[in-house]
Amino acid sequence: MRDVSIIGIGQTAVGEHWDRSLRHLAGDAVLAAMKDAGIEMADALYVGNMLSGPLTGQEHLGALVADFVGLRGIEAVKVEAACGSGAAALRMGYAAVAGGLHDFVIVCGVEKMTDMVHDETTTGLVMAADADYESVHGLTFVSINALLMRRYMYEHNVKHQDFAHFSVTAHQNAMGNPNAMYRSPVTVEQFCQARMIADPINLLDSSGIGDGAAAVVLCPRNMAREYGDGRAVRIRASSMATDSVALHDRHDPLWLSAVEASAVKAYQQAGVSPHDIDLFELHDAFTIMSALSLEASGFAERGKGVWLAQSGEISREGRIPICTMGGLKARGHPVGATGIYQVVEVAQQLRGEAGPNQIPNARLGMAQNIGGSGATAITHILEAQD
Amino acid sequence: MRDVSIIGIGQTAVGEHWDRSLRHLAGDAVLAAMKDAGIEMADALYVGNMLSGPLTGQEHLGALVADFVGLRGIEAVKVEAACGSGAAALRMGYAAVAGGLHDFVIVCGVEKMTDMVHDETTTGLVMAADADYESVHGLTFVSINALLMRRYMYEHNVKHQDFAHFSVTAHQNAMGNPNAMYRSPVTVEQFCQARMIADPINLLDSSGIGDGAAAVVLCPRNMAREYGDGRAVRIRASSMATDSVALHDRHDPLWLSAVEASAVKAYQQAGVSPHDIDLFELHDAFTIMSALSLEASGFAERGKGVWLAQSGEISREGRIPICTMGGLKARGHPVGATGIYQVVEVAQQLRGEAGPNQIPNARLGMAQNIGGSGATAITHILEAQD
Repeated sequence: MRDVSIIGIGQTAVGEHWDRSLRHLAGDAVLAAMKDAGIEMADALYVGNMLSGPLTGQEHLGALVADFVGLRGIEAVKVEAACGSGAAALRMGYAAVAGGLHDFVIVCGVEKMTDMVHDETTTGLVMAADADYESVHGLTFVSINALLMRRYMYEHNVKHQDFAHFSVTAHQNAMGNPNAMYRSPVTVEQFCQARMIADPINLLDSSGIGDGAAAVVLCPRNMAREYGDGRAVRIRASSMATDSVALHDRHDPLWLSAVEASAVKAYQQAGVSPHDIDLFELHDAFTIMSALSLEASGFAERGKGVWLAQSGEISREGRIPICTMGGLKARGHPVGATGIYQVVEVAQQLRGEAGPNQIPNARLGMAQNIGGSGATAITHILEAQD
Repeated sequence: MRDVSIIGIGQTAVGEHWDRSLRHLAGDAVLAAMKDAGIEMADALYVGNMLSGPLTGQEHLGALVADFVGLRGIEAVKVEAACGSGAAALRMGYAAVAGGLHDFVIVCGVEKMTDMVHDETTTGLVMAADADYESVHGLTFVSINALLMRRYMYEHNVKHQDFAHFSVTAHQNAMGNPNAMYRSPVTVEQFCQARMIADPINLLDSSGIGDGAAAVVLCPRNMAREYGDGRAVRIRASSMATDSVALHDRHDPLWLSAVEASAVKAYQQAGVSPHDIDLFELHDAFTIMSALSLEASGFAERGKGVWLAQSGEISREGRIPICTMGGLKARGHPVGATGIYQVVEVAQQLRGEAGPNQIPNARLGMAQNIGGSGATAITHILEAQD
């Protein structure tokens, strides 16, 4: 199979875009990525999206976005894996380029969560969970994560405020990202006093949903130098794994098996270990997911994820910087777009374009997108191309 | 790239399965296909589905179905391209196997349209159209096709009853298919007198929606002989093309450009012409789509698709048999599953397992799945493997 590179990146700011429809958001990101790559055509467009049908009454995003950006005719589909939809679409794009089906593939993640015409957002988000065994009983997506967090606190003798630094760090990083939704600092005290959403998850444990789109352009690595002003980023690894959708079906709810499996496969493919990773864009939909992701991905021992945060090791100066542009928490979490935002941000870091948030000498970055409460995990490892 | 074969097929009957949930339907088809192939494991599962979110409140079907069939852990995603979702998922599976990413990929199409908990079906189906420019004005999916049919009748001086044989033939063929939804004959007179849905489309112009699932197992052709009792079917071509989603944006609404583009690419890849095709499972969501598909795919000249039907050339004994197991019209149209049903039926024909509906000496079969009113078209050409 061929090595694959990212030769262009694009993104919109995350926010409440009452003046931009789904197709406008996707179009902005795709056209920016194409301009960045210096291409005017592509062979295929894969769109990661979770909720366009339930929220805006629009499916069929592949053809819709392709046409809107001037690529009418090309192969185009939507890929869905709950909140992991963005990276799942990238995985399909990677397969098409690596396998030789296409040379130039655009992958876009987009979500429009304001201005709903059908269901409301909480009803939409819980479609990531098991409809017949979880949501039917009234569980929302937040309350599923609350069950996880409560159990974690009990098993590992951890207090709620021990999670504070995930939120504090994310907000700190978002202040340097012009595309982030919440560019304001948060203190440990504010975190502890934030209003409750689903006990023990409070407002500042939770990522903010929003509208947004991000896009990347892929091509074979041996063609990448000709595009994007030589700033191409190489995909060293791409992997996906799954677990049961329903929490109660897992052998150990506090161990994200799919995250572990996808991370281990990615390390193997890239021939690296967690120690080699310079930054890690993880899926901090809730602070509990940050802790569990760090543990299952090999950055902390079981039950020790929160301590990595408390000790400052997740900050930009720490051992393993996470959420360097604000993460889901503070950049914002337009669910189906998030996986591509993560990859775009890793690419910004590896290209040395992360502005005040730049991780010095970043060579190897990891992006990990999760669907549901851990039922789907997609891990990509990117490398600065020299 | 590697040649790809279908080594296993499975399907449920299409109907109103009030006693079977979405995951049960998918599970039945996937397990049947795995049994047919003689495999107990796979590398990935791609699920074609359009409306699980809007209709049943369940997204995240990749992980859900993988877990339910005993494949917890493997790569799994949902692929959506409106009514073309099934074949779009097959296209992704084909890319993964042909490109060398995976050896064994299961592709399942599933749709559950009875027992809705969220939106109702008409609201769901119109998500295939343009939400901002078509459905917002009150157009339903049937009425969009009615506009096409009315224009066709005007431009080509064709009467409504001239479309009758598409419906008559489909019902005739469904009588020999135990999995078909409508196994009863229809006469030209009944067709003409059927009640109106959206003028000029009446009940017997329209395919019947339903619940159902179908699945195939793919592997590299050079490994195919070891599986499925030597009845493997080779994928000679796989192609996808798109057009504008909104009807008014097309240069010529009566010419399905995406269908033409995907068919031409498929013929080129397989090195064949329409004359070589022994049977054609086309996307007869409405009789007008049959006529337009035959024309854009090179089986009839512009405006002559209906005459191919009237002359009997689309019957099992004719020049180009279509809808040999009943088609969308009479086998039934569980939208996201339809593309896989078509491929399963072509495989049945090429394996000589189509029972009373067997096309003698069928060697080359084409399956074409359409999303929306022609905005997405996916064409696969299959060959009996010797």
